[in-house]
Amino acid sequence: MPSPVEFYFDFSSPYGYLAAQRVDELADEYDREIVWRPFLLGAVFKTTGGQPLLDIPMKGDYARHDLARSARLFDIPFEIPKKFPFMSVSACRAFYWLEQDDSEAAQELALALYERAFGEGKSIAEPKEVAEVAEELGHDPEEVMAALQNPSIKARLKSEVDAAIEKGVFGSPFFIVDGEAFWGYDRMEDLGMWLDTGGW
Amino acid sequence: MPSPVEFYFDFSSPYGYLAAQRVDELADEYDREIVWRPFLLGAVFKTTGGQPLLDIPMKGDYARHDLARSARLFDIPFEIPKKFPFMSVSACRAFYWLEQDDSEAAQELALALYERAFGEGKSIAEPKEVAEVAEELGHDPEEVMAALQNPSIKARLKSEVDAAIEKGVFGSPFFIVDGEAFWGYDRMEDLGMWLDTGGW
Repeated sequence: MPSPVEFYFDFSSPYGYLAAQRVDELADEYDREIVWRPFLLGAVFKTTGGQPLLDIPMKGDYARHDLARSARLFDIPFEIPKKFPFMSVSACRAFYWLEQDDSEAAQELALALYERAFGEGKSIAEPKEVAEVAEELGHDPEEVMAALQNPSIKARLKSEVDAAIEKGVFGSPFFIVDGEAFWGYDRMEDLGMWLDTGGW
Repeated sequence: MPSPVEFYFDFSSPYGYLAAQRVDELADEYDREIVWRPFLLGAVFKTTGGQPLLDIPMKGDYARHDLARSARLFDIPFEIPKKFPFMSVSACRAFYWLEQDDSEAAQELALALYERAFGEGKSIAEPKEVAEVAEELGHDPEEVMAALQNPSIKARLKSEVDAAIEKGVFGSPFFIVDGEAFWGYDRMEDLGMWLDTGGW
């Protein structure tokens, strides 16, 4: 059985959102499981000196234009939230809380959070907002709020972020398949080719 | 007659080299002229706070791996020169000197310089080294050496760099077609699609 594709992303990453909309297609096309791994890009930026994409002079303007263009190409609804970049800690914790028992439910939540943020341009930064999205999927919002403060969930997220950095993940989206890393939304075609051919 | 595709690159950019190896295919496939526009990425980094790709923690290691992988995919000889990044001012000036009278000769020189640097891993940073490459193409090395110190050529390069920044060019390779910008070697497929469809 082939190993799964690890899909790393930050909930505050617009290119991560676009990738999340298309990664299931890849999974289906090449019959590979995708393991979703939200992490905190801010922690990586402390190592790389990176900064939020849209704040960078020149590059930020280009990225806004390119994001809208890339979304249009695949008919993906797209809007940058008013408050951007935003804190994605709560979204990540909710994900890993659900993922303990049910990775499909966690993935469903991740997609719903991403769609709220970049499909509708609404905030998912606050714990309450994350709990609301979870409630729409049938989860108990009180339980979600409690989970976001749960020390073991906090520790789990921290260890996931450390593990991502350890593996060399420095951007979002970022994919690892059979030890091979692909960074960026615009490398999903290469990733697909790698899955198709087994590498070159 | 459709407008040409502007192809911006820094001679010290390895992804620019890969793009230069493939841009003629694009030109042929979509019957568009390509205008080559070498510039100095260092001047842009002053605005964007960018830094040489291979020096960035984590990202640099990934880029080395990805460059070799991307070159393999298209059977492009690839080697990072020992001294890297390197000064590309002389290469640029030689290009614009030739380009005054003969843009094809300038393009031929650009490719030869790029191949020396990233195909063979040799230095093209020094004026003498640029003159040597030009000599192999039949140009008089003394004339090249003189051109590299020619005030009007220096001014030409400066105005080309200013014009690139004015147009929002912040990376290498960078393409502009009909006012639409595409940044990065991994966007050549999108660029091709744009040329094919007229945009979306």
